[in-house]
Amino acid sequence: MKAFSRQSINPCIIATQYAVRGKLVLEANGIQKEIEEAKKKGKTNPYPFDKVVYCNIGNPQICNQQPLTYPRQIISIVEYPELLNHTSFFPKDVINHAKKIINSLGCTGTSGAYTNSMGVVQFRKSICKFIKRRDGTAPSPDEVFITDGASTGIKMILNMLISHPLHGIMIPIPQYPLYSAAISQFGGFQINYYLDESKKWSTDMTSVRKVYEQAVEKGIQVKGFVCINPGNPTGQVLTVQNMKEIIEFCYEKKICLLADEVYQENIYGEIPFTSFRKVLKSMRDEVKNTVELVSFFSVSKGFYGECGKRGGYFQIENINSFARSQMYKMASINLCSNVIGQEMVEIICNPPKEGDESYPKYINEKMSILNSLKRKAKLLHSVLNECEGITCNEAMGALYLFPKIKFSNKYIDECKRKDQQPDEVYCLRMLKSIGVCVVPGSGFGQKDNTYHFRIAILPPENEIQNIANKIKIFHTSFMKEYDH
Amino acid sequence: MKAFSRQSINPCIIATQYAVRGKLVLEANGIQKEIEEAKKKGKTNPYPFDKVVYCNIGNPQICNQQPLTYPRQIISIVEYPELLNHTSFFPKDVINHAKKIINSLGCTGTSGAYTNSMGVVQFRKSICKFIKRRDGTAPSPDEVFITDGASTGIKMILNMLISHPLHGIMIPIPQYPLYSAAISQFGGFQINYYLDESKKWSTDMTSVRKVYEQAVEKGIQVKGFVCINPGNPTGQVLTVQNMKEIIEFCYEKKICLLADEVYQENIYGEIPFTSFRKVLKSMRDEVKNTVELVSFFSVSKGFYGECGKRGGYFQIENINSFARSQMYKMASINLCSNVIGQEMVEIICNPPKEGDESYPKYINEKMSILNSLKRKAKLLHSVLNECEGITCNEAMGALYLFPKIKFSNKYIDECKRKDQQPDEVYCLRMLKSIGVCVVPGSGFGQKDNTYHFRIAILPPENEIQNIANKIKIFHTSFMKEYDH
Repeated sequence: MKAFSRQSINPCIIATQYAVRGKLVLEANGIQKEIEEAKKKGKTNPYPFDKVVYCNIGNPQICNQQPLTYPRQIISIVEYPELLNHTSFFPKDVINHAKKIINSLGCTGTSGAYTNSMGVVQFRKSICKFIKRRDGTAPSPDEVFITDGASTGIKMILNMLISHPLHGIMIPIPQYPLYSAAISQFGGFQINYYLDESKKWSTDMTSVRKVYEQAVEKGIQVKGFVCINPGNPTGQVLTVQNMKEIIEFCYEKKICLLADEVYQENIYGEIPFTSFRKVLKSMRDEVKNTVELVSFFSVSKGFYGECGKRGGYFQIENINSFARSQMYKMASINLCSNVIGQEMVEIICNPPKEGDESYPKYINEKMSILNSLKRKAKLLHSVLNECEGITCNEAMGALYLFPKIKFSNKYIDECKRKDQQPDEVYCLRMLKSIGVCVVPGSGFGQKDNTYHFRIAILPPENEIQNIANKIKIFHTSFMKEYDH
Repeated sequence: MKAFSRQSINPCIIATQYAVRGKLVLEANGIQKEIEEAKKKGKTNPYPFDKVVYCNIGNPQICNQQPLTYPRQIISIVEYPELLNHTSFFPKDVINHAKKIINSLGCTGTSGAYTNSMGVVQFRKSICKFIKRRDGTAPSPDEVFITDGASTGIKMILNMLISHPLHGIMIPIPQYPLYSAAISQFGGFQINYYLDESKKWSTDMTSVRKVYEQAVEKGIQVKGFVCINPGNPTGQVLTVQNMKEIIEFCYEKKICLLADEVYQENIYGEIPFTSFRKVLKSMRDEVKNTVELVSFFSVSKGFYGECGKRGGYFQIENINSFARSQMYKMASINLCSNVIGQEMVEIICNPPKEGDESYPKYINEKMSILNSLKRKAKLLHSVLNECEGITCNEAMGALYLFPKIKFSNKYIDECKRKDQQPDEVYCLRMLKSIGVCVVPGSGFGQKDNTYHFRIAILPPENEIQNIANKIKIFHTSFMKEYDH
């Protein structure tokens, strides 16, 4: 038997699923290619649309969101410091910031060298200052690991926690499928706790405690509790009260809290973002000083949307020094995260200040992106709720809506007979009819007999109304066809 | 028990070792810090040297190797395309190449978006052309995965092959410790085959077959055979004859060949580099069309030395489409490798051609780096061999020397009594005496009762003679002290 024969490949990897880039997207890529090739050959476009609109993923810059000027100018200079001889090109604060970064990059000032395994120490200090502005207190740079996006850090932490099929990680349902994928890859046990759709996707502690007890009865050792706030795919923002309950639960059960806070700067509703770290620090001493917390941040989201840079960090609280040395070792095996991603994290955490030459432009770019996201979230939310058979919570934060579709029993039965997922068939039809690529709810997990899809709110503002209308028309016709 | 208590952390991770950034380097960092702090406070430097010379790692740009101008100019423009309005700054071919890259990056032309999970398809096409120039035949872009450095790809492949403690991977001893670390992390079985120091570190097929049989007798299922060519830490370059024997062995035993070829452009001796792919393609049909081969490349090494970019690729041969779809899924979970690293791979594989405006400068930079490396390798090799009790093979390629030290029995016994590694004590003493940081042979594996260290040939040319002299003086005094 060959090493890469189907029977020989790691079965945990075969079992792993990741729908965000799964079947729907491969289909979408195929369609896009067909359209382009027809165009090239002067043939008729076989589809009733000109291009696929990718709403399957939070990838803002592919949807025409422009990169922020300030970090790009700095990175450009650091890559080619010759540009420092042409200072008239760049604002003064850009030049100064670039020089600071160059000075941080060891004696030779180049982004081409491996850095400290945890990331450049001066960059980690900027992250600590960013956290201090946010939480009122600063962590130590020794508690910060800069990573290639948030994903790498999340996988490292789960890899450390899981070493047996009975090691359990609690994840919200619906969830971002990196979590289920990583648990499956490392051969752990996935414990689903359900977010309450009827209460704006809040965390229902009764459900949490119930599934915990059920897992323990099965002999599972529960090691991690994942919380995504603001929620992906669900867009909720947790109240401080809800967060305190979660922390108390983790304290009581000695579970490490994994706080996925990558959407912390994407807030559109009335509840402000509060970090788990800040809430933890406000609690009584025995809680504050013991609950193990890992918080994740990424430059891919927020108003910066620099997905391609693969920059992020995780910051730890109450993790003992032995475990920290193991994290250092794991980071070392990859030598370091990519240095330009590290620079991007530093710049996002250390933006222009009032009075700086770049400040007005930076704030203008930032606010116009955030305001546009807010308008798009509201528009899509309102149009989706106009569709008969769709109900959809508002996006209080993050970059997605997760509408629920009420299909007819007739349609559901038909899908079952054909061994198909009702939401997957729906999304595939949407893709082929109007060229909008969304991800079926089954890719994120959903309560039995409920059906959803995730749609990113990212298409350009001049297209979003049209996309919303097309979805409404598609939906109406789809529902009619199946006698809904 | 808390989730991150010592008893709770994944024991495979605790067991993992990675000496290249281990004890010696932490010690070196501490010393460097002490020196800097003494300087700041106006106190006397507690060490007899001004700075630590890091020879522990192949990190050229930290040792003053200047980045190549051509790729840096292109990346700078892609990051901030406003620079295209100042065309007088850049050579024409740089402008054109930058525009091509921008056009490859989706409709929006930005490095800030996630790409295809395998990397930008146009970049993969450039890689295929690079391979064609090297091997005479081109692979398909579907057989190329762009990764964050070579390490990520190597770990992905090993993760797919290992799912049981009896799954074995054959690795050379001495080896680059990423392999032992990854095998340990994934809970597999490490099978050591020995390189023959007396025959210029060539691969001894008798040893290979012997350890294979021993492993099979123990019930091990052998899945992978790792070959590092040019060798790390050993610097050998394999002959085509030796490569054919290795491929025959993999064919016969149905083992996947992992060819670590990241030093393919670092050649200093008479044997030219030949890729395993090229040798495979030259063999008879049943071998050519069946042996599973994965070859790794990195922008961190060669004459480019862009370690911080974390760019690399792996290219596969004879891997079935199911396994390939699993690789695609694994790559998708991390979304994509960092885009600037991808750009760097593309640029290295698609350098200026004769007649292009940048060509003379590019060739000049390339040749002066390669010639300098060659001179440094020869100088260090010759001084080390002058040391009494040291024998050292030449570096035919790569970036390291791996000298053997013959310690006295008295010294070895003393170390054993103190539960110390003789080579580690030696390296630690070297660090504290002369500030040169090297890695003990035990970090790479060595035959029992032999002792080595790995030294990178990277220090700047105006320092290398001085460093070599210091090592010689240190070594002489160390050996004297222990009555050698």
